[in-house]
Amino acid sequence: MTYTIKDVAKKANVSTATVSRVLNDQGGYSEKTKRKVLNVIQELDYYPSGIARGLTNKRTDTIGVLVPNLTSSLITEFLNGIESVAHKIGSSVIVCHTESHGIKTMKYLQLLHEKRIDGLILASTVLKKEYYDYIVKMRVPVVLLSAYSEFPVPYVTANDYEAAYTGTSYLIQKGHKNIGMISGNKEERIAGNLIPRVEGFKSALSDYNIPFNESYIEYGKFSIDDGVTGLKRLLNRVPDLTAIFTENDEIGMGVLSAAYNLGIKVPEKLSVIGMDDISLCKFMSPPLTSVSLSHNEMAEKAANLMFKLINSDTEVSNCILDHQIIERLSVRSQ
Amino acid sequence: MTYTIKDVAKKANVSTATVSRVLNDQGGYSEKTKRKVLNVIQELDYYPSGIARGLTNKRTDTIGVLVPNLTSSLITEFLNGIESVAHKIGSSVIVCHTESHGIKTMKYLQLLHEKRIDGLILASTVLKKEYYDYIVKMRVPVVLLSAYSEFPVPYVTANDYEAAYTGTSYLIQKGHKNIGMISGNKEERIAGNLIPRVEGFKSALSDYNIPFNESYIEYGKFSIDDGVTGLKRLLNRVPDLTAIFTENDEIGMGVLSAAYNLGIKVPEKLSVIGMDDISLCKFMSPPLTSVSLSHNEMAEKAANLMFKLINSDTEVSNCILDHQIIERLSVRSQ
Repeated sequence: MTYTIKDVAKKANVSTATVSRVLNDQGGYSEKTKRKVLNVIQELDYYPSGIARGLTNKRTDTIGVLVPNLTSSLITEFLNGIESVAHKIGSSVIVCHTESHGIKTMKYLQLLHEKRIDGLILASTVLKKEYYDYIVKMRVPVVLLSAYSEFPVPYVTANDYEAAYTGTSYLIQKGHKNIGMISGNKEERIAGNLIPRVEGFKSALSDYNIPFNESYIEYGKFSIDDGVTGLKRLLNRVPDLTAIFTENDEIGMGVLSAAYNLGIKVPEKLSVIGMDDISLCKFMSPPLTSVSLSHNEMAEKAANLMFKLINSDTEVSNCILDHQIIERLSVRSQ
Repeated sequence: MTYTIKDVAKKANVSTATVSRVLNDQGGYSEKTKRKVLNVIQELDYYPSGIARGLTNKRTDTIGVLVPNLTSSLITEFLNGIESVAHKIGSSVIVCHTESHGIKTMKYLQLLHEKRIDGLILASTVLKKEYYDYIVKMRVPVVLLSAYSEFPVPYVTANDYEAAYTGTSYLIQKGHKNIGMISGNKEERIAGNLIPRVEGFKSALSDYNIPFNESYIEYGKFSIDDGVTGLKRLLNRVPDLTAIFTENDEIGMGVLSAAYNLGIKVPEKLSVIGMDDISLCKFMSPPLTSVSLSHNEMAEKAANLMFKLINSDTEVSNCILDHQIIERLSVRSQ
């Protein structure tokens, strides 16, 4: 025999709304009620039917998230933020990993379409025309997280140009003049917003009348390894650097690691500042100063925006979050 | 008009098998053929239909993976290993995040059942009876990764007891006698195989005639923060510790961080060894010595085992992988 939520509610002597809240861990009931409901659920071998829910309210209570990378700490922190919002609302989250690969991205968009989802978040993904065209066909709300687009898709992101300008200015204000940068990939504009970080770096130098030279920039692919090789290459070209601005914290972590192995003391001999303020920063030796782009707030805002779009047809506005320097121990005055 | 794989093959003047291999990035064709096929795909606006595939061969070419945690580096490295195997085979991967939460786990099992998957991997998850009962109903192959179970479900894992014994013996052989351990959660036996690491630690001390005292063990929840607080508590109780064995690398990273902030030099004043050998170990300052449980191989073996089960009814045997010490700079002779 298959039981329904009504059977559970009746047997536990509570309302169906209470059963639903317990199932979705939403609070608003006593510990005793929770135990009673969970006991009945176990006793009846009842599991809420997503398909039945889907038939009732035309929803599947499932959202999809496309991510380019699962070993990036920033991405996993985004996923935690999205899941926490979805969980409160009672929605499940399907995560698909595209590796920024065009055919794989299309394959996953199609998969999510087939599996039926209520909404979609694209994290740190450049919205190519083919994706946009497919998304339009999917007819579900879509929100871009940490990316923006000229297609009419709402986004929640930061101002990368200004954040990089702030990070570089911070080093300059600490008295540094010989500042190198390790950037992400020059060719692939991942998230569509990463070259602005290079421009922000250049503008800050220019505004403080510090001559800029292309040899002060090294390009990698946003990984820790790129920080390691990037520092070695930069120091080969420009041995008198006193500070490094890195395009993300993972590159910054690589710089700390390479400096340790080269016997270069941070911050005594070299100051390092990262970007994103991922949770690993504070555990580095020394703890890594970083430009925070409020990414926890960013993920939650993107998720809330998507659920708002699922629930109504109202217009939503894009959101650009503030940034701030989180001072730790990897930068010192020159 | 909707095009099929046959239309693409005809127009590109290749076989449908070649189109399929290009779509799944499986190699075995020239760069020229690949470009030609991709051009035709774009021209015809063709996307392979998973539903159509499902109707033909009764498969959905989708597998599910349940993970307890997305901020654990070990878990994201497992996911990368699984995805790499699935990608070669042409299968998509749906990732669901359970937080080791019973109701959430059941919800996601049901979701994956509804969405139709060909097979399921449960990573670092204790297989409770209710999960097992539901999995039996799902009628798809299931493999446990980094966990074992008394239920008849195949698993790929390591011998945690022996690995912890080896790690502790390594410290003893380096001359350490005052060795502390920071373990995971005492109450929740996550992955069902974590208390064995404590037993391995105790057995090594006993075999070398080093007296054991419960105050030498601190319990946390496998996070970096637990390494930070764990070291402080251990040193308060036992100030003359010269080495710490940590139950996973994240706890080990927390110990390095706390030691840095307390001004305790590693390895000069304190040796630290982690477990799992996640990719962050080599980037720590100092690089963290760790007991490798071959987790990349573990994830690939689990995925290959699951696809083997999907493709045939043959019996498969469980797999327990070897471990080895990866020597870096965080341990020195006493």
